[in-house]
Amino acid sequence: MNYRSLRIALLGAGSVGAQVARLLLEQGDELAARSGARLELVGIGVRDVEAKRDVELPRELLTDDLATLVAGADVVVELLGGIEPARSLLLDAIAAGADVVTANKALVAAHGPELFEAAEAVGAQVAYEAAVGGAIPIIRPLEQSLAGDRVLRVMGIVNGTTNFILDRMHTQGATLEEALRVATDLGYAEADPTADVEGFDAASKATILASLAFHTVVPADRVHREGITGVSAEMVAQAERTGRVLKLVAICERLGGPAGDRVSARVHPVSLPATHPLAAVHEAKNAIFVTAEAAGDLMFYGAGAGGPETASAVLGDLVSIARRHVLGGPGSPPSSHANLAVAEFGDVLARHELALTVADRPGVLAAVAGLFAEHGVSVESVRQDARDDEAALVLGTHTASEARIAAVLAALDAHDDVERIDSVIRLID
Amino acid sequence: MNYRSLRIALLGAGSVGAQVARLLLEQGDELAARSGARLELVGIGVRDVEAKRDVELPRELLTDDLATLVAGADVVVELLGGIEPARSLLLDAIAAGADVVTANKALVAAHGPELFEAAEAVGAQVAYEAAVGGAIPIIRPLEQSLAGDRVLRVMGIVNGTTNFILDRMHTQGATLEEALRVATDLGYAEADPTADVEGFDAASKATILASLAFHTVVPADRVHREGITGVSAEMVAQAERTGRVLKLVAICERLGGPAGDRVSARVHPVSLPATHPLAAVHEAKNAIFVTAEAAGDLMFYGAGAGGPETASAVLGDLVSIARRHVLGGPGSPPSSHANLAVAEFGDVLARHELALTVADRPGVLAAVAGLFAEHGVSVESVRQDARDDEAALVLGTHTASEARIAAVLAALDAHDDVERIDSVIRLID
Repeated sequence: MNYRSLRIALLGAGSVGAQVARLLLEQGDELAARSGARLELVGIGVRDVEAKRDVELPRELLTDDLATLVAGADVVVELLGGIEPARSLLLDAIAAGADVVTANKALVAAHGPELFEAAEAVGAQVAYEAAVGGAIPIIRPLEQSLAGDRVLRVMGIVNGTTNFILDRMHTQGATLEEALRVATDLGYAEADPTADVEGFDAASKATILASLAFHTVVPADRVHREGITGVSAEMVAQAERTGRVLKLVAICERLGGPAGDRVSARVHPVSLPATHPLAAVHEAKNAIFVTAEAAGDLMFYGAGAGGPETASAVLGDLVSIARRHVLGGPGSPPSSHANLAVAEFGDVLARHELALTVADRPGVLAAVAGLFAEHGVSVESVRQDARDDEAALVLGTHTASEARIAAVLAALDAHDDVERIDSVIRLID
Repeated sequence: MNYRSLRIALLGAGSVGAQVARLLLEQGDELAARSGARLELVGIGVRDVEAKRDVELPRELLTDDLATLVAGADVVVELLGGIEPARSLLLDAIAAGADVVTANKALVAAHGPELFEAAEAVGAQVAYEAAVGGAIPIIRPLEQSLAGDRVLRVMGIVNGTTNFILDRMHTQGATLEEALRVATDLGYAEADPTADVEGFDAASKATILASLAFHTVVPADRVHREGITGVSAEMVAQAERTGRVLKLVAICERLGGPAGDRVSARVHPVSLPATHPLAAVHEAKNAIFVTAEAAGDLMFYGAGAGGPETASAVLGDLVSIARRHVLGGPGSPPSSHANLAVAEFGDVLARHELALTVADRPGVLAAVAGLFAEHGVSVESVRQDARDDEAALVLGTHTASEARIAAVLAALDAHDDVERIDSVIRLID
């Protein structure tokens, strides 16, 4: 059969890029039959064409002249990562009328609206299914399947490295350092694990998910972010004792307010009941739990990273784009019409569990409880254990705003009878 | 803002239809902002406009003249169920250039190709996200997100009624009859539960999933179907003792073969390890587990039925169709280019566990084992318990074709020393 041809320019030949190239070259006939167009790989843009690669790629396709490669393409697949030169290359491609596919969460989080606007102006498509949850279909379900529903909350394990580390702390009793070392040895963590461990990667994904779920641009710098470096083996053991599991999650939530709905996006560790579906997500797997008004609870589970896995999502986008080219009609821009206000993190509501070491003398519990009352935080549970001349105090709060909890923590920190705040964790029911 | 208007005709005002009508009437502005078109509900086709309904619907929208209603619509939403008049009405609508949205799995399973061809001829769209898995996005992920991957297997809990019944047998030790009675009382089962309990509903969904996953029309009458009526409390107890859970699943599988890939779609109970993600799907929930070559394992979980839940999927389809109308371009037909052969059920491979009651005398085990050997079925495990002058024998096989297992069962049935075959269940690892 004679298909029309689409010129595909691939930027990047790392673990994902090499798999995309391989699949395009090997499965050409099948992909053409599915999409109605031949996906012709016209070049692979890399920094150094002579560099040693794990997957053999045809030498004649490699080029370090990315600008020229992009200029001649119908579709540009960007797997470089980072902001520049990815951003400029994609804007150039879009300006020339090309569609783009990207797995670059940092770029979409920081410059998504700029790319979407540029694409809408020329009728081009920006596809980014691989940017969140690797192989897991989550962008399309949020953008299309739930387009007629009102999403209330998205809570996802969207970073495989930190899930691997926390899972290992739970299953092996490892410390954070030990678990991180294993993650590095197994290739789950980068040499510099900051982006994962400090929650930057998950925060990019939270931005993307919140923007889609709430039809609202949620700027990356409005995402509250806490990583897992504060999670100790003792906190994990304490969670286990109460039938709970610690996970790093991205939470995107619709909050009420006197002036209408507001939205919040944040990344931090939480303590989940062991029966929660997200608690069963082990190793480096990802899962996204979505609650919508009509649909109820939905969960999407799978591999959040990996070369072939992420390449699957990239190729899904490519085939969809090729079908649109064959059928005609412009690309479909994401909708941000709702334009809801982004709530201050201090206004977010949560239940907290605080572990304190306090002096073991009369009146201390009353003093501590008084601090909570003073800041309007209602205490739901207290457990006290004596330890020599100290006492360990674990307090669970009712739902309270983050601002009130922060004020309580500052007051506890300044109180003479409080030796130290051992841990603070947010509880999910 | 001034939007163009799309005339929506709704057929059916049952639990899903009433919710779709309510959401269209209540969320008109929001849906217009999301899609770029006003979704104007021009009529609700029902059998009896005077019938008493749970949800109040505007009297002036109700009509029993479905043909006239359909003739004036841009989009027809079909929630009548059953084959006729749904099929004829949709074909008329498509012939007139309308797009259609349907939640009717029986219709799509039996007449999908006819509807898709008719739609492709005029550039119209047939959307049916609600036909499988209720609120769970599964059609779009298979059709679009995995469009660049090679799906190896789809295994789904796609019937909430039977999952509720089996779950209750596990958690409460109930018999099938008791669990069915509770399901009926709670509204999970129809007065005539045949379609659910005998696996007809799941088989329709297997047809749809297999056709999508393998780009191949899988006729409804080629789906092997066994319901749950053969599942006894004793089988459930036996599964529990070995750390397993019984579930009714639809399995769509790509099989190798000397003349290339073949596909199989079937519905029957299986025994899953309690650690399998599908084992944790309780009550009337649905979940679909997909294994693809590059993406690996994915799971999609949520509510498989219910008025508001299913309405969410219908509205998602409606908004997607409205966006396409605004942007221009024809509908996107499903691809069936691969046209793979459908394997005979006898060629399907599985591990089986058989429980037999045999005479307790010397040589019986040897005779039974001999029957398996004679038919080329390799036995992996045997457990024998004496009971008075009988013995209970539980045999687990290695992977063997269904044809060989059927031959073994026939031979066992005819053997004098075999008192009865107590149960047969397929094992999933």
